[in-house]
Amino acid sequence: MKEGKIRMKEEGLEKIAEKYLSEIKVGTSYEGISEIDVFVLCLPSPIDEEGKPVVRYLENSVRDIANRVKKECLLLVESTVPVGTTEKLAEIFRDVNGKKLDHDFWFAHCPERVLPGKVVEEMNSNHRLAGGVTNASTELAVAFLNTVFHAELIHATRSRISETAKLAENAFRDANIAYANELAKFCTVLEIDVTEVIQLANLHPRVDILNPGLGVGGYCLPKDGWILVESVRPFGEEGILIPAARQVNDSMPAHVSKRIRETVLDMSLRPTIGILGLSFKPDVSDTRNSPALDLIKLLGFTGMEVVVYDPMVFEKHGDKKVESLEEVLASCDVLVLGAAHQILKKELQNKDLSQKVFVDPHGTMIDIATQVRKYIGLSV
Amino acid sequence: MKEGKIRMKEEGLEKIAEKYLSEIKVGTSYEGISEIDVFVLCLPSPIDEEGKPVVRYLENSVRDIANRVKKECLLLVESTVPVGTTEKLAEIFRDVNGKKLDHDFWFAHCPERVLPGKVVEEMNSNHRLAGGVTNASTELAVAFLNTVFHAELIHATRSRISETAKLAENAFRDANIAYANELAKFCTVLEIDVTEVIQLANLHPRVDILNPGLGVGGYCLPKDGWILVESVRPFGEEGILIPAARQVNDSMPAHVSKRIRETVLDMSLRPTIGILGLSFKPDVSDTRNSPALDLIKLLGFTGMEVVVYDPMVFEKHGDKKVESLEEVLASCDVLVLGAAHQILKKELQNKDLSQKVFVDPHGTMIDIATQVRKYIGLSV
Repeated sequence: MKEGKIRMKEEGLEKIAEKYLSEIKVGTSYEGISEIDVFVLCLPSPIDEEGKPVVRYLENSVRDIANRVKKECLLLVESTVPVGTTEKLAEIFRDVNGKKLDHDFWFAHCPERVLPGKVVEEMNSNHRLAGGVTNASTELAVAFLNTVFHAELIHATRSRISETAKLAENAFRDANIAYANELAKFCTVLEIDVTEVIQLANLHPRVDILNPGLGVGGYCLPKDGWILVESVRPFGEEGILIPAARQVNDSMPAHVSKRIRETVLDMSLRPTIGILGLSFKPDVSDTRNSPALDLIKLLGFTGMEVVVYDPMVFEKHGDKKVESLEEVLASCDVLVLGAAHQILKKELQNKDLSQKVFVDPHGTMIDIATQVRKYIGLSV
Repeated sequence: MKEGKIRMKEEGLEKIAEKYLSEIKVGTSYEGISEIDVFVLCLPSPIDEEGKPVVRYLENSVRDIANRVKKECLLLVESTVPVGTTEKLAEIFRDVNGKKLDHDFWFAHCPERVLPGKVVEEMNSNHRLAGGVTNASTELAVAFLNTVFHAELIHATRSRISETAKLAENAFRDANIAYANELAKFCTVLEIDVTEVIQLANLHPRVDILNPGLGVGGYCLPKDGWILVESVRPFGEEGILIPAARQVNDSMPAHVSKRIRETVLDMSLRPTIGILGLSFKPDVSDTRNSPALDLIKLLGFTGMEVVVYDPMVFEKHGDKKVESLEEVLASCDVLVLGAAHQILKKELQNKDLSQKVFVDPHGTMIDIATQVRKYIGLSV
């Protein structure tokens, strides 16, 4: 960013970067921090290996700020956090520097709410929550958001409510994908096409089943259900449905791996599998928690080799990753569409795939079925 | 029906009954059955005490018909059935009378798809599936449905697909209500209002959380998830999410019972609880699998007495059921809105409730909060 560049691919972001990045002071030190009026904290709030939320990045940064601010300030948390975190962060701030809430500082949770791949568009059109730890904090947060977003899109609430709403949004999405995925697994043993079942079920006026697939990836969805569950665990509540949804979605790479392995054995194919697309969803470069990465691991466990091609992903992935589709086609009988990037689908159109087994967990390239040796969807 | 009357309350049904019931031959014997061309089987397909699907009503009726038909006939199953049932019924038909599929008889699954309370309206406007056990059966089923419904609303498929789609529709609905209910239980321990959380979460363009409540009742939703799971169990598939959804929804009467009990103890109220509305949803007379009935049982277990009032329900419910709202008000400090019938809400408007604790699990009468001693929703 200091060089005036943004690595992340988002439609419209480059244009914004060109226009504004030179006017923004970007830094990695706390220099000049005492002069700041509004802090927008966008730090990561991941879960650890045991599924417990990690809020220390936020806590440390609040401590660092608290130690350095000189004037009145508003602190906004954009991160998705366990319920009650914003209140705790306000306490940390007060404990560190002895300043008074609603007098010297104000604290609110204003979660982001955008679709990766459509961040710029949705940043302007989606509703936003302003959840203060006090009424005065809420008011100040609303006033600040008003300077950037349309007033009618800003909703005043309390931090505990906005924290819960944000987690509930993502867990809802995760649960609905899990429903589609469970249905796909059922259709597999019933030997019927889950795509047709969902299409017909969705003719019902109150039914809207999502698309099943290789699993749920990205930075938010795989963790936010757990963060919500961890928020209530101290009160003796465990959750039944949300943990079940996580379990189903996490099981999908194993489901696809099993289908691939069975096909390789049944058809006596070469045990080198070509994975096309590594990102957690089509047309983004983000591979965080991508189910394609889990699939690669699982295929490895069953003794299969993997070759990976993704024209959108810049990171290395060991010696597995190759730089052209040709290399994949040369070494693999089985191709797996891990992420259906437009650019990848276009490249595939010009290739002779008549001897390939094509695995399409998301069912996004069903038209290719007639051009390949065998087409394998999620269920049939 | 022989007397020209229909007991079930459905908007527009009485008018249809008046107009057509005299032209229809209604009977309880198989007299004249050999002359019938099309059989529409609408028999119950419940689950037993262990949650296993019961298809013997359909099987017996198919045997009875098979023993009596003389001419070619089409058999349509309207009931929601385990996947593969329609194929099995066709086999039973053939085994009983030796007739030949696609020559002497045709068999299809054409599930109903209507909202109780809006049956007449949705019967005309909703899409319908015609799932034959053979292509010829599908074609004949489509042709028959065409004589009654709009052609563009009829979708040809196979019976295994239509059976799965129908079960998946209801299980989807159940899972989504379960999500709202789990969220309500979480909000209870977090001491925040689930109604506000859902309202704010639903501002998200891809989030549509349903209303939580006392649980899921009625004839279909509580059983269809289990029937879907039982359909795949023989193949070693168990299901994770759908059983979890059932568990959450079944837990809601206990959640509400606990809240009532705590309130009665905390506020030293009389332990006679007034249940207003017994039906499984507002404005219908159907009490099948109603969660209000479970609540009554659970309150009984904790030593509380129950008085019930429901102006829409005609069945007796022991000596618990009274004939006027006044009787409930006289004996109870705590009122529970079990089913928010319009007629019930209207009656409540004219009453002095200032000394009553009002429990509103569905959050449909939040406006009453200012007129009662204490208002208790599902979470706060």
